Amino acid sequence: MKVTHALTLSRHPVLVSDPKMIQYLIGAHFEVGERFLGLLLQRNEVRLFLNKLFPYENDQIKIIRFSDEEDPIHMLAKVWDEDTLKVDHNLASGFLLKLMRLKPLADYHIDTTMDQIRSIKDDEEINFMREASRLNDEVMSKVPDLLRVGVLESEVASKIVELFNTSSDGISFKPIIAFGDHASDPHANPTDRALKANEAIVVDMGCKYKGYCSDMTRTFFIGHNSMKEVYETVYKANMAAIKKVKPGVSLSDIDKAARSVIEEAGYGQYFIHRTGHGIGSSVHEPYPVSSDSQIICREGMIFSIEPGIYLPGSGGIRIEDLVLVTKDGCDVLNAYPKDQEIIIP
Amino acid sequence: MKVTHALTLSRHPVLVSDPKMIQYLIGAHFEVGERFLGLLLQRNEVRLFLNKLFPYENDQIKIIRFSDEEDPIHMLAKVWDEDTLKVDHNLASGFLLKLMRLKPLADYHIDTTMDQIRSIKDDEEINFMREASRLNDEVMSKVPDLLRVGVLESEVASKIVELFNTSSDGISFKPIIAFGDHASDPHANPTDRALKANEAIVVDMGCKYKGYCSDMTRTFFIGHNSMKEVYETVYKANMAAIKKVKPGVSLSDIDKAARSVIEEAGYGQYFIHRTGHGIGSSVHEPYPVSSDSQIICREGMIFSIEPGIYLPGSGGIRIEDLVLVTKDGCDVLNAYPKDQEIIIP
Repeated sequence: MKVTHALTLSRHPVLVSDPKMIQYLIGAHFEVGERFLGLLLQRNEVRLFLNKLFPYENDQIKIIRFSDEEDPIHMLAKVWDEDTLKVDHNLASGFLLKLMRLKPLADYHIDTTMDQIRSIKDDEEINFMREASRLNDEVMSKVPDLLRVGVLESEVASKIVELFNTSSDGISFKPIIAFGDHASDPHANPTDRALKANEAIVVDMGCKYKGYCSDMTRTFFIGHNSMKEVYETVYKANMAAIKKVKPGVSLSDIDKAARSVIEEAGYGQYFIHRTGHGIGSSVHEPYPVSSDSQIICREGMIFSIEPGIYLPGSGGIRIEDLVLVTKDGCDVLNAYPKDQEIIIP
Repeated sequence: MKVTHALTLSRHPVLVSDPKMIQYLIGAHFEVGERFLGLLLQRNEVRLFLNKLFPYENDQIKIIRFSDEEDPIHMLAKVWDEDTLKVDHNLASGFLLKLMRLKPLADYHIDTTMDQIRSIKDDEEINFMREASRLNDEVMSKVPDLLRVGVLESEVASKIVELFNTSSDGISFKPIIAFGDHASDPHANPTDRALKANEAIVVDMGCKYKGYCSDMTRTFFIGHNSMKEVYETVYKANMAAIKKVKPGVSLSDIDKAARSVIEEAGYGQYFIHRTGHGIGSSVHEPYPVSSDSQIICREGMIFSIEPGIYLPGSGGIRIEDLVLVTKDGCDVLNAYPKDQEIIIP
């Protein structure tokens, strides 16, 4: 269990409430809805606060059970016997404020250790991530066959979900399929918009393999189009950022590498998001690859490089790969081509 | 917009971060992932803090935009100019702790006004909820045909999802289909377990209609079984709680009505959850129907009544209906029969 490693690294007690982080640490996933769920790491002990409704056993962990009628925060306040508590970003404020009222003199901080641990993938995780990306490549290679004038965004998305359901452990997020001007919204949900001739098509998709995620974006063209120059700029930005990745470089410098290519081409104001995000057992996890990041690349990190240009009213281009930081550079986990616009006749 | 009504009722500034609550208040849904999203209600003004990535316009609201490089909590701290802030239960602690560091002398509380407003359904919402439950009845009436010896829990679940995809706006939660001893886990996920002769079958499912949810549980029997007495106890508990519902009665008394029937029959320790939960545009929303609730029934509330008995190693029975609190009692929104065990020959 990764929680054993985590215990040795956290000087102060840490309360983890994020179900995905708990799964990462102890290998068990709980969907408790609005009920409390918490993993307390304190000195040499790990305690899991879990509602009686959810069956679970684990010899290496103290499981503290409560019913719908009991207050787990009171129980937590009794067990946590120090002056400082680090909590995760996503802990619900309702629980935190109750704890603060029970122990008003303690110091409360956001924990960063768990994110650090999770951001460095071990060999098994790296293998799962490679396989998830390989499966993503495989489905992406079938996408051009789906793109014909008249097809709906929603049809392409459904077909991709179906392909992933057969070949992998399912999608890691709902595919973004955006035609023409709709692609100027980076998070466009697939609609019943039909593909027209001479449009660019953004396809952003990923799957899971043994709990680990892939995520890749390619932009296709159907027939002739006017976005050739934009495509080349995004491609150069993607390549410049990837070239920058190695241990010791800051994530903000990687963002800058992509951003300056786009700015120099005169499209700076249309690259409206960060360059990438960490990925692993969640499709978005620490750390963001953004201009304000203080984080330094370390071997074993995996994150996306996904510059894009979004021209309101006319269209969008994005090219996204996952990179694994290696000893002296990085491995790109996706192999599907991107070096020129993929034009579907 | 319901937010106009909410403004008149909140004496202190309120920060709402829950996307479902924001949708309820202003009618727009945002999926922002780990990014900040907040609706600030202060005096006569409504401000929406929204990342630049998400297209949205609304004349009645001040929209405060920020990029991935800007800090929305700093912006919020400048705009919020009072000594008290009420936040919703689900606000991420990372944002709250940052705000507390920027304004350490202010008072922070959990808001309860928004939950109160949301718990009382208006006529339009009631119509949507009635229709969602009618559609749920319709699909439940087809479930007995799916239950044959040898069928897998996962097959039944997939078929139900398919039926809802055709007839409604899709499921409101993943159906719980649990055969035999698997039903002793109230939240059992469908597995590849095959239905055997003489087993009880718990079917807990719901769909959406125009953004509003249904939720119903029925327990079926295939052939003869030994759970007849247990079924009757759960049925009586369900009916006793429903009979209790009217304005002025506390939710804890409704829980008690169900619980005492089960306790008197000697199964008290096997009714391991609260009697019900509020429901509306979310499948679980305030308020829980539990023994420690301070909440009083008011006309227009809708919640579930779902007593259950779970016998480890042998099986489970649950019967769930939605009730709408009326002027002098309640309407049950589900019509699918429950008055005797539904035995599939």
